[in-house]
Amino acid sequence: MTSGLFISFEGIDGSGKSTQTRLLAEALRASGRETILTREPGGSPGAEEIRQLVLTGDPTRWSAETELLLFTAARRDHLERTIRPALDAGHTVITDRFADSTRVYQGATRGDLRDTVDRLHALMIGTEPDLTFLIDMDPATALARGLARRSGEDRFEDMGLGFQETLRAGFLDLAAQSPDRFRVIDGNRTPEAVAAEISAIALPRAGATA
Amino acid sequence: MTSGLFISFEGIDGSGKSTQTRLLAEALRASGRETILTREPGGSPGAEEIRQLVLTGDPTRWSAETELLLFTAARRDHLERTIRPALDAGHTVITDRFADSTRVYQGATRGDLRDTVDRLHALMIGTEPDLTFLIDMDPATALARGLARRSGEDRFEDMGLGFQETLRAGFLDLAAQSPDRFRVIDGNRTPEAVAAEISAIALPRAGATA
Repeated sequence: MTSGLFISFEGIDGSGKSTQTRLLAEALRASGRETILTREPGGSPGAEEIRQLVLTGDPTRWSAETELLLFTAARRDHLERTIRPALDAGHTVITDRFADSTRVYQGATRGDLRDTVDRLHALMIGTEPDLTFLIDMDPATALARGLARRSGEDRFEDMGLGFQETLRAGFLDLAAQSPDRFRVIDGNRTPEAVAAEISAIALPRAGATA
Repeated sequence: MTSGLFISFEGIDGSGKSTQTRLLAEALRASGRETILTREPGGSPGAEEIRQLVLTGDPTRWSAETELLLFTAARRDHLERTIRPALDAGHTVITDRFADSTRVYQGATRGDLRDTVDRLHALMIGTEPDLTFLIDMDPATALARGLARRSGEDRFEDMGLGFQETLRAGFLDLAAQSPDRFRVIDGNRTPEAVAAEISAIALPRAGATA
């Protein structure tokens, strides 16, 4: 049996990313593909425990480096326990965020750590998605459309529009660096229009007979 | 102000290591040196939380790689919050275990991970102690002397005498590779005799006027 397709969704908060992961999972299942929908940080019981440890309590109690190690431990567990077994069984895996989020958020908050992020990923994770959808949306538009809701644990939402613009630019840079893996999707449309474009790209790649 | 002296103690369980860290801390304080006594895993509030996460629950729920990342996160926090500030203040720091324990325990259980352990240490920790005391004792002697007590969380104690002999050989190998940093101390003597040898080495290095 060949390995399943590994798809990640990336983008700033409020880009409609989570809705689109759900809609693509529904489309894949409707076309007969076994599909796992997961997310980071978290995505496996051990990774969820680490997520709780990092995200509860005083946000300044971990340094950026310690937090990076904890999130990498969570990602390793997520990969081993959830993603890899599903891919090995030939299923499609859709994850809401993966390593690109770490690259962009760490790069925006601690630019000097970007090289460490890359080295740590190469050493302990290695795997990249086969296909990454970047849902691109202007942060001001996301706010105006009321999409940028509070998730209750996102520590970056209070950092202002300028910070969100830095994150958006970071994601677009990554996409430009890996054009074979990334598909940049214009998120400034109805969810149905966005979903239709994504399905048209993903379903043939996943071997679905839509 | 010059940086303080960073001392680690290593050795198999039952070697009398913890007793010797305490006796050396007492000797240093008696000679007027500000001394911090700490231990791994743990040694800072954040690292203790990570220690709890790793060591409670089903011991098979983390892979060796995830566990290595979690212990490295704990060590980074321990270094940043406890060890480094004390050294910067000119104090002597004594830790019961540091990175050598990870090298030896991982090497003995998952030899293929030894290179990863070294790379991860170089990337995220970097720091080595100035002076490492290896309390060397034959595991059979430790058992016969009743020193190898159950700590309640040491998952390696049930792995038998052969495994303890492998660990001892691993520590001796490390000491041979870094003769400038290591002092191998014969633990097959009274605690007082062992402590006297250790103090005679450490006190002058710590700038104590014994």
